[in-house]
Amino acid sequence: MRNQTPRVQLLLTGNEIMSGDTVDSNSALIAKRLDELAIPVYRKVTVGDDPGLLKRELASMAANADLVIVNGGLGPTIDDLTAEILAAVAGVQLAEHPQAVAHLETWCAARNLKLNAANRKQAILPAGCLIVDNPIGSAVGFEMQVSDCRIICTPGVPSELRAMMDTIVHSLAAQLQRPVERDILRLQTFGLGESSAQQLISDHLPDWPAEVELGFRAGAPQMEIKLSVNRRADLPARQRCRERIEHLFGDHIIGEGDSLLAERVLDLLRQRSQTLTTAESCTGGLIASMLTSIPGSSDAFHAGFVTYANHIKHSVLGVSEAALGEHGAVSEEVVREMALGALDRSGADYAIAVSGIAGPGGGTDDKPVGTVWLAWGGRDTLLTRCLCWPVERSLFQTMIAAAGLDMIRRMLLGLDSEPRYFRQRKAR
Amino acid sequence: MRNQTPRVQLLLTGNEIMSGDTVDSNSALIAKRLDELAIPVYRKVTVGDDPGLLKRELASMAANADLVIVNGGLGPTIDDLTAEILAAVAGVQLAEHPQAVAHLETWCAARNLKLNAANRKQAILPAGCLIVDNPIGSAVGFEMQVSDCRIICTPGVPSELRAMMDTIVHSLAAQLQRPVERDILRLQTFGLGESSAQQLISDHLPDWPAEVELGFRAGAPQMEIKLSVNRRADLPARQRCRERIEHLFGDHIIGEGDSLLAERVLDLLRQRSQTLTTAESCTGGLIASMLTSIPGSSDAFHAGFVTYANHIKHSVLGVSEAALGEHGAVSEEVVREMALGALDRSGADYAIAVSGIAGPGGGTDDKPVGTVWLAWGGRDTLLTRCLCWPVERSLFQTMIAAAGLDMIRRMLLGLDSEPRYFRQRKAR
Repeated sequence: MRNQTPRVQLLLTGNEIMSGDTVDSNSALIAKRLDELAIPVYRKVTVGDDPGLLKRELASMAANADLVIVNGGLGPTIDDLTAEILAAVAGVQLAEHPQAVAHLETWCAARNLKLNAANRKQAILPAGCLIVDNPIGSAVGFEMQVSDCRIICTPGVPSELRAMMDTIVHSLAAQLQRPVERDILRLQTFGLGESSAQQLISDHLPDWPAEVELGFRAGAPQMEIKLSVNRRADLPARQRCRERIEHLFGDHIIGEGDSLLAERVLDLLRQRSQTLTTAESCTGGLIASMLTSIPGSSDAFHAGFVTYANHIKHSVLGVSEAALGEHGAVSEEVVREMALGALDRSGADYAIAVSGIAGPGGGTDDKPVGTVWLAWGGRDTLLTRCLCWPVERSLFQTMIAAAGLDMIRRMLLGLDSEPRYFRQRKAR
Repeated sequence: MRNQTPRVQLLLTGNEIMSGDTVDSNSALIAKRLDELAIPVYRKVTVGDDPGLLKRELASMAANADLVIVNGGLGPTIDDLTAEILAAVAGVQLAEHPQAVAHLETWCAARNLKLNAANRKQAILPAGCLIVDNPIGSAVGFEMQVSDCRIICTPGVPSELRAMMDTIVHSLAAQLQRPVERDILRLQTFGLGESSAQQLISDHLPDWPAEVELGFRAGAPQMEIKLSVNRRADLPARQRCRERIEHLFGDHIIGEGDSLLAERVLDLLRQRSQTLTTAESCTGGLIASMLTSIPGSSDAFHAGFVTYANHIKHSVLGVSEAALGEHGAVSEEVVREMALGALDRSGADYAIAVSGIAGPGGGTDDKPVGTVWLAWGGRDTLLTRCLCWPVERSLFQTMIAAAGLDMIRRMLLGLDSEPRYFRQRKAR
C-alpha cells in the first residue's frame, strides 16, 4: 500500500443482499474493524451475482483504491464468482491451490464428509494468490496485488467473516507505515436520545477539541457514545473529554465497552452476594429474559414471575383482590403488592415489578396506551413511579424493561431515583 | 422511464453507515418494496457525506439507470448534501420550495415548535423538483428527471422512509407501461435450515418451473420460503409448487406472510378458549416474552414462571427435592414436575417446561452444553424429550424457546411430535 492511510473500498456481492431478503451487516463489521486502525472506508458498491458488473466494479476499484475488500461469492455454487472475477481483473489463470485443497480436506475430515466436486470448486483460485485462513468454514479467503491495489476476498457468512477479520486486521496493522495509535473508548448510556445528547454537548462543551472524535450509536434500549483519538499524545485530551461527558451525563452512563444494563445489575448484585426477582405484567418476561441472556446470571437471579392476568397476580403473587378491584391492575398499589409478593416467594433481596398498557389496545382516557407503573427495591426500600411512554408495543416493552433494570442499578449505586428520562415521561 | 422494467440503482449517503456505527436496513426495505412491482435493484453505492464523491456517483448513475433512489442527506445540518448534489447534477439552482415550507410550518405547528433556520434549510431544494410527501418527519422527499433518469430523494430515518415508500411504490406502479401482476407468497417455517431446504427441493422437485421464483430468507428462529410469479397466468403453476412444497416440508410450515410461531400458538389456543403457561429454566423468560410480544396475548397466556434456581423449582413449582437430588435439574423427571407445577398453579390447559445447559459454562461429560429437556402438553398428555443443540447461548435460548412453542403447535394441530429437527438433535 502506497499511503500511510490506504484508500479503502468495499465490493459486496450476492443476490440475497440486492433483493433485500438479507440485511447486510458484513460491511458494518468490516468498517468497524478497520476503524480500529484509523482506516476509513470511503466507498462501497453492492451488486448481484452478475459477472460483467462484478468485473467492471472490481477493475475500477483496483485502479482507484489502495485496498479493496470483496465480500461474498466464495461458496461452492456456480453463482459464486469471486475467484473467477479476481483472476480476470488480475489477468491470471484459475488453478487449484494446494493450500486451499489441504484446508478443504481437513475441514471435511473433521466432519466425516467426503470432499465432493462442489466443495472442490472452492480451491480453484487465481494463480499466485495468497490464502487467508478461514478458521470456521470450508471456503478460504484469498488475496492478491493488482498493480498498486491489494485485493482481499472474504466469505459472506457473517461468522466466517468475523473470524477472518482478526487475521486481516493484524496483517494490515503490520503493513502500515505508521504506528497504530488509534484508541476508541465506548461509553454505554441509558435514557438519553442521540439528538438531545448532541445538543447537550454542543451547548455545554462548545470548545470540544478537534483531536477527539465524537460519535453516537443509537440503539434500543442503550445508546453508545464513542470517543476516539488517532494519536497516543491525545489520550490526556480524551480523558478530559471523558470527564466532562461524565459530568454532563452523569448517572446515565452505565459502563464502558459493550456493557449491558442487565450485566451491570448482575455484577453489582454479585459483588454484594444479593439477588433480584421480577414480577412482570406488560413486559411479559422480557426483564427475566434480558437477565438470563447473560452467562452466569444464575448467581444473582433465581426466580421471575410473569403474572399477565389479574387472577394470577392474586393467586401466584398474593396481590389483594381489594387492590385489583379498587385501583385496577395498572396502579401503584398493585405493583407494590406484586413486588412484595415476588420478594416473599423468591427470598430475593430486590424486586422489579411492572404493570402497564403496552398497546395497541387496552388504553382508556384515564390510562392511555403507554401508561405504566413500576415498583423497585427491597422490602423496606420499595419505590414506585408512574410513567407514560407511548411508543410501539415492542419498543415500549424494551424501554420499560430496561428502565426497571436501570432503577435497580441506581438504587444499588445510590444514584438519583428521578433521572431525566423519568421527568420527561411523567404520566398526567 | 423508457423501459417496461426500469433499471434501478440506489445511492446511499451518510458517515454513520460508512463507519459501521449504523447497519443499513433502508436499502433492503427499498429493494423489498420495489420487488412487489417486479423491479429489481441491480447496483447500490454507498458513500459518506462527501460532496465531490456524491456528485460523481449521482451523475454516473443518472447516465446509466432509468431510476435512481437516493437515501439519506435530507436533514437540517451542513452534512446533509442531497439537495445541493441533485441541483448540481441536474444543472439547476437551489431555491426555497413553497410546498416544502408549508409542510415544515404545519409540522412545527403540530409540535408547538418555532420554525428555525436549520429546519428551513430542509425547504431549499433543486428548482423545478416535485415534492414527495413525508407523513411523519420534517424533511420532505423530492424528485426530478435528469435526462432519461428519474431521481427520487428519500430520508435516512427508517420510519420516514417506510412511510414514504408507499407513495413511491404507487407512483411507480402507475407509471409502469405494464400491468403489475407480481405476486409474492411467503411461507414461514420452523426447524428447517436454508441449505437442507434447498437440497430437499433440488432432490425432490427437479422439474421446478422457471416462472416460479424460489427464495429463502434464513432467520432465527424461523426461515421464510418465498414463491414469486410475475404474471397472473402463472398463479396456477405457483399453486402447484406450493402444494409440492407443503407436501415436502409438511408440518414444518407454520403459516403465511409474517406469521410468527408464538402468534400461531396463541391463535390456536384462542380458537379453543384454552390457555398456555410456561415453566422456564435455561430459556429464562424468553418463551413468555415471545408470547407477550404479540398484541392480545392475554387471551391465552395468563402466567409464566422463571425458575432459574433449584430451590425455586421446588418452592414455586413444587418440584420434588427427590427428583432434583436424584436426577439433577436437567432431567426428564424435573421438567415433567415443572410442567405439572405450572399447570397446577396457573390453571392453564397446556404448559411448556424447559431445563437445560445454555452455556458457555455448566456443561459436564454426561450433560454437555446444549443439552436440554423439554416437557409440553396438558395434565394428561404431557410429552418429554431430550435434545442436544450446542450453539452459542443466545441462539440456543431462541431455538429452544421456539421448539417449545412448536411442540404445542404440533400438539394442538395433531401433528407429528418427532419432527425432523428433533431427530437431528437427539442427545446421546
